[in-house]
Amino acid sequence: MPEYKLYYFDARGRAEPARLILNYAKIPFEDVRVSKEEWEKVKGDKTRFPYGQMPVLLIDGTPLAQSNAINRYLAVEAGLAGENNLERGQIGQIEETCRIFNDSLGLYRRSLLLQTPNQETLFNNLFVPTCEKQLPVIEEHITSNGFFHSSGVTYVDLFFADLFKTFYSLHQDILGKYPKLVEHMNKVHALPELQEYLSKRGENKF
Amino acid sequence: MPEYKLYYFDARGRAEPARLILNYAKIPFEDVRVSKEEWEKVKGDKTRFPYGQMPVLLIDGTPLAQSNAINRYLAVEAGLAGENNLERGQIGQIEETCRIFNDSLGLYRRSLLLQTPNQETLFNNLFVPTCEKQLPVIEEHITSNGFFHSSGVTYVDLFFADLFKTFYSLHQDILGKYPKLVEHMNKVHALPELQEYLSKRGENKF
Repeated sequence: MPEYKLYYFDARGRAEPARLILNYAKIPFEDVRVSKEEWEKVKGDKTRFPYGQMPVLLIDGTPLAQSNAINRYLAVEAGLAGENNLERGQIGQIEETCRIFNDSLGLYRRSLLLQTPNQETLFNNLFVPTCEKQLPVIEEHITSNGFFHSSGVTYVDLFFADLFKTFYSLHQDILGKYPKLVEHMNKVHALPELQEYLSKRGENKF
Repeated sequence: MPEYKLYYFDARGRAEPARLILNYAKIPFEDVRVSKEEWEKVKGDKTRFPYGQMPVLLIDGTPLAQSNAINRYLAVEAGLAGENNLERGQIGQIEETCRIFNDSLGLYRRSLLLQTPNQETLFNNLFVPTCEKQLPVIEEHITSNGFFHSSGVTYVDLFFADLFKTFYSLHQDILGKYPKLVEHMNKVHALPELQEYLSKRGENKF
């Protein structure tokens, strides 16, 4: 097995799905948390950060960047990406649908992080309508096993449950309207494979 | 081999990479071009269009939606996604970087399609700075074989060359500043495997 080092800030953000995948499969890795001060010093190092961004997964010293590419790579290593190419395609479709939800909320998430004054406007004009439009579509993907794909738990379950948790903790009144997604979030966070990690993980809001 | 039907409008748009992949690998498929009138009648058919959107690839009658998921599925079938999971991860990283470029230009592309009056503003404030920021990064990915990955031609070459061509045909003065990307576009469109398709394809602008 290669030597893995995952670089990101001390936050869940764009690295948490990779951490969940690695922990789920008990794949050893170094979970490197970079402080903002340290990041200013090292972000110019192209041998580790080809785009000057994190997350980056170093695989035997060679960087793999872009969180979604990292997630898909690790998902295959972890056995969380279906059994064959067709299943992977179907899971990939759900990944894309969940990503659209995530990407649509970028401005709102930013306003929360930076505590900008337009938070309420973005809540009313972006967050609420995005949830109302997209969450019913995502909810329809839940299968009889409680996960998104009939083959069982996949990286998209980990990705989406983590994302949903972020917004659920802030807006239970809105996200609580999708009981199957709430159940999905709880089911993922109750997976026995994740308990060791989740119990030692700090409760980062983002 | 499954029976494939690819549904999209009579345009390149979000379906052209899939068409290029299928044609490159000589995988038989029905290239269904849906008129705007026809689309209004059929888009509610969830058995074919789960999100009420195209493109959709029907695989033995079962729909796979989301263009990027379709591309990755087909790329593996076509042998255009590297040799192993690590190579697929590296190619996926470049896919993500090219997608950010594409997604960043969404508003400008829309203004061109709909001929809205804010075209010039979007050209100056969105198109030009996006190119200046992102194309040098993408250009750095070109390897000594002229393609993005050292393993040879991949679906990301087909995806990006098609995208680059759209904007190159409109703004040669801007995109001509990236000679390796111009060469890449030409190299992809000169691939022997694509000549039959390209020669019979209409010259759709988008």
